[in-house]
Amino acid sequence: MEFTVGQIAQLLNGKVVGDNTALIRSAAKIEEGKPGCISFLANPKYESYLYETESSAVLVNHDFEPKKEVSTALIYVENAYSGFTRLLEEYQRFTQQIKRGVEQPAHLGEGSSVGEDGYRGAFSYVGKKCSIGERVKIYPHAYIGDNVTIGDDTVIHPGVRIYDNTVIGRHCVIFANTVIGSDGFGFAPQPDGTYKTIPQLGNVVIEDHVSIGSNTTIDCATMGSTIIRSGVKIDNLVQIAHNVEVGKNTVIAAQSGISGSTKIGEKCVIAGQVGIAGHLTLANGTKVGAQAGVGKNIKKEGLALSGSPAYELSAHLRAQALVRKFPEIEKRIQYLEKEKAGAGKTDRAD
Amino acid sequence: MEFTVGQIAQLLNGKVVGDNTALIRSAAKIEEGKPGCISFLANPKYESYLYETESSAVLVNHDFEPKKEVSTALIYVENAYSGFTRLLEEYQRFTQQIKRGVEQPAHLGEGSSVGEDGYRGAFSYVGKKCSIGERVKIYPHAYIGDNVTIGDDTVIHPGVRIYDNTVIGRHCVIFANTVIGSDGFGFAPQPDGTYKTIPQLGNVVIEDHVSIGSNTTIDCATMGSTIIRSGVKIDNLVQIAHNVEVGKNTVIAAQSGISGSTKIGEKCVIAGQVGIAGHLTLANGTKVGAQAGVGKNIKKEGLALSGSPAYELSAHLRAQALVRKFPEIEKRIQYLEKEKAGAGKTDRAD
Amino acid sequence: MEFTVGQIAQLLNGKVVGDNTALIRSAAKIEEGKPGCISFLANPKYESYLYETESSAVLVNHDFEPKKEVSTALIYVENAYSGFTRLLEEYQRFTQQIKRGVEQPAHLGEGSSVGEDGYRGAFSYVGKKCSIGERVKIYPHAYIGDNVTIGDDTVIHPGVRIYDNTVIGRHCVIFANTVIGSDGFGFAPQPDGTYKTIPQLGNVVIEDHVSIGSNTTIDCATMGSTIIRSGVKIDNLVQIAHNVEVGKNTVIAAQSGISGSTKIGEKCVIAGQVGIAGHLTLANGTKVGAQAGVGKNIKKEGLALSGSPAYELSAHLRAQALVRKFPEIEKRIQYLEKEKAGAGKTDRAD
Repeated sequence: MEFTVGQIAQLLNGKVVGDNTALIRSAAKIEEGKPGCISFLANPKYESYLYETESSAVLVNHDFEPKKEVSTALIYVENAYSGFTRLLEEYQRFTQQIKRGVEQPAHLGEGSSVGEDGYRGAFSYVGKKCSIGERVKIYPHAYIGDNVTIGDDTVIHPGVRIYDNTVIGRHCVIFANTVIGSDGFGFAPQPDGTYKTIPQLGNVVIEDHVSIGSNTTIDCATMGSTIIRSGVKIDNLVQIAHNVEVGKNTVIAAQSGISGSTKIGEKCVIAGQVGIAGHLTLANGTKVGAQAGVGKNIKKEGLALSGSPAYELSAHLRAQALVRKFPEIEKRIQYLEKEKAGAGKTDRAD
Repeated sequence: MEFTVGQIAQLLNGKVVGDNTALIRSAAKIEEGKPGCISFLANPKYESYLYETESSAVLVNHDFEPKKEVSTALIYVENAYSGFTRLLEEYQRFTQQIKRGVEQPAHLGEGSSVGEDGYRGAFSYVGKKCSIGERVKIYPHAYIGDNVTIGDDTVIHPGVRIYDNTVIGRHCVIFANTVIGSDGFGFAPQPDGTYKTIPQLGNVVIEDHVSIGSNTTIDCATMGSTIIRSGVKIDNLVQIAHNVEVGKNTVIAAQSGISGSTKIGEKCVIAGQVGIAGHLTLANGTKVGAQAGVGKNIKKEGLALSGSPAYELSAHLRAQALVRKFPEIEKRIQYLEKEKAGAGKTDRAD
Repeated sequence: MEFTVGQIAQLLNGKVVGDNTALIRSAAKIEEGKPGCISFLANPKYESYLYETESSAVLVNHDFEPKKEVSTALIYVENAYSGFTRLLEEYQRFTQQIKRGVEQPAHLGEGSSVGEDGYRGAFSYVGKKCSIGERVKIYPHAYIGDNVTIGDDTVIHPGVRIYDNTVIGRHCVIFANTVIGSDGFGFAPQPDGTYKTIPQLGNVVIEDHVSIGSNTTIDCATMGSTIIRSGVKIDNLVQIAHNVEVGKNTVIAAQSGISGSTKIGEKCVIAGQVGIAGHLTLANGTKVGAQAGVGKNIKKEGLALSGSPAYELSAHLRAQALVRKFPEIEKRIQYLEKEKAGAGKTDRAD
């Protein structure tokens, strides 16, 4: 598929300086561009790449002024980054195979209803009494248990496992091999040293516009619901335990884990490999740095935390810096001790 | 499904104070109860919720004495928590769809035997020469290789992968997408900088009453067996490397990893995101705190460890507290140094 | 299957001292050997086991001289460890069931070509326009999207998910439930607090002789390719984010995570549960210790790093040791302070 620079400019409501008949076939980072590619320049830090790029066209902000001669076509738009993202979306829309219909064999249990214009891949499994919305895509090998509700326009990727009674909203995407609603980790210790399984009777509720990566696990509640609020974005290999609630528009990066019954506020940002203990509350806007371990409630909104155990980022950085200074500090103490001893001797010598 | 408060009291051998004709449809935490729910009160800390709950009935200990008027029905039982767990189990038994029979298409290899009253879901795969016990449930998309043994009453959830020669005991549960018996990570460095794969010829042996969460991985042994002893409970996203042995009734929380050939004792408690190095032995009853990194043998039974590298919890907490005091401590040293300098000057002034 | 000690010696070009008619049925570690087993002794540290082992034969280095009487047959070879590995490989070759042909039902999309002598298991799915090489094994429940290329002799284990446009080389192995090419975690924050998905249009390229464990995730690039160079070995539950490049013959242990656009050099060794931040470059031969968190570029080749945040191993060990000495150091400061105060008093007493 090919477009001219002029066609792209028209789509983005931009102005061309340079060859508007050049053909664009692909997108690339400005530093990796080849003839036939389009790139963008938003951050002035990367301006030098503009004068060397082999890309055939580059999107720039409307107020950009080149400092040297440019051999590529420039497309001036309101905002180069948004324009580029818009272009990627359009490209995706053109190139994406729209999956539709049912590939056989596919299993559909009794009493389940499936909306129109959707896709069910070969070897997909939908249990009994499910309600599947319109335009929902269920890829091959996806498993959907009994009594599950899935809203319109949601996409369930290959190998996703959705346990009984789960409720998923509209416009969600769940990537491959993620497991939603398996048992929470609940065992009651017995006098003989064994553990008894505590029945996990609740479910998982996922609201609208939620994205969940691959190989992630979200456990069902013991009673009630584990809740993922609307707009939440969860990365790969994340663990969400039973009865957790994740607030609206919160982002959780790969390999982080949230323990049972913890309530994460809205607009929080949890970096990678973070651990958060159970039965805690994190205020809205909390930011947790990579590999941190949060062990207490965070009541103030918007705090940045770091370290394991986690405390305020600035204090943590200060303490970390001092740990590295430790060898020097010990020498200073030794010096003081020696001085002291020396002074003592001198005194006696007096 | 509905029961009266009286019926529930009879089941639990309890005594009712209040309306024993009230209908119960569901269970809830005492602070989240609605009419038609039953809750429990075991911990005196939550007693205040009793006077506000909307639940229609609350289980309490036989010796409980309310301090205010109570509007819900009280059911006095020997132990409110055990009674409630019992109730959840009964509820689960009533409501759970008992899966039975074979959904087609399902693959069953030559020479494999399957016991009575079990379930094999659509798209499940059982290889050759397997021995599957009675009442075993194999959910859709589960894969069982060749020469695998599975004991009576074990449940294999959707998408579980069980490699050739694995042995699994009775009354085990393995949740979705967990992988049992794939190759251990063994490579021999070659003079040219490449690595040669060391054949992994052993298997995995899982004893009785073991529970394993979702998306967990347990590698086969290089030679011999990786062994999970009876009663072990393993959470989601856990990594168990080749030739590891996990002792009876040990509990391992989510995202922890145990490296090759390490031997974990009985009744240990490994919290979340813990790492344990290879070729170690941990004594019975060892407790390892979240995110800890264990790098040496633990010989004394019942120790609590914390930190990365991990050492005894109490020492670790002391050191952690001091790290935070570090800025203040450095000021004290500066003060001593200044004093010293000052003293020196004074001396000279003398 | 049984071999005599003499047959094994012949295979390995070794010399027997002892009974060369003894029958060997299995392999075992020297300390766990039983009659009918063969073991090896390479590390002098384990020599004492030689005099107690029940194994029927033990491989030893050509220059080994026993210090006591030995009851097992000894096979002298050039290098006992390599010889043993060779034996395991031969054993695997003999015992391994060679999977071949197609088990039905298996899905093969339009326009896809599959080489000769391969295997496609029941419920495996290959999308459209794929090019699958010769002798490729695709196990049950594996999912291969559209336009995927897989080189000769590669093995795709059960439940692996390979997204559209992925390119995989020759002689690779990908273990169960690993996901290759799902979307990178890219979201642009919007003024109203929500996030907009950034289209992830790139792919994953995996070169030759790469091994990838179970339940691992490798994201596709936003544009361009996430690249795994030839000879790389990746363990279980590892996260590789979008646009990462992993250099030749690098090894990454379980549960480690590499953030977006980071470039790992050749022959690096990344231990377990390591986190590496985004947009970094690690020089060839970098060694990162378990649970470390790398937050900056590593320019010097061959450095060993440790800690979170990670810095040079030796400095890190020194600081760690001092943190434990902290309580003692604080006492020394208190002592100096007391001395000072005492000195003050004495002065005044003068």
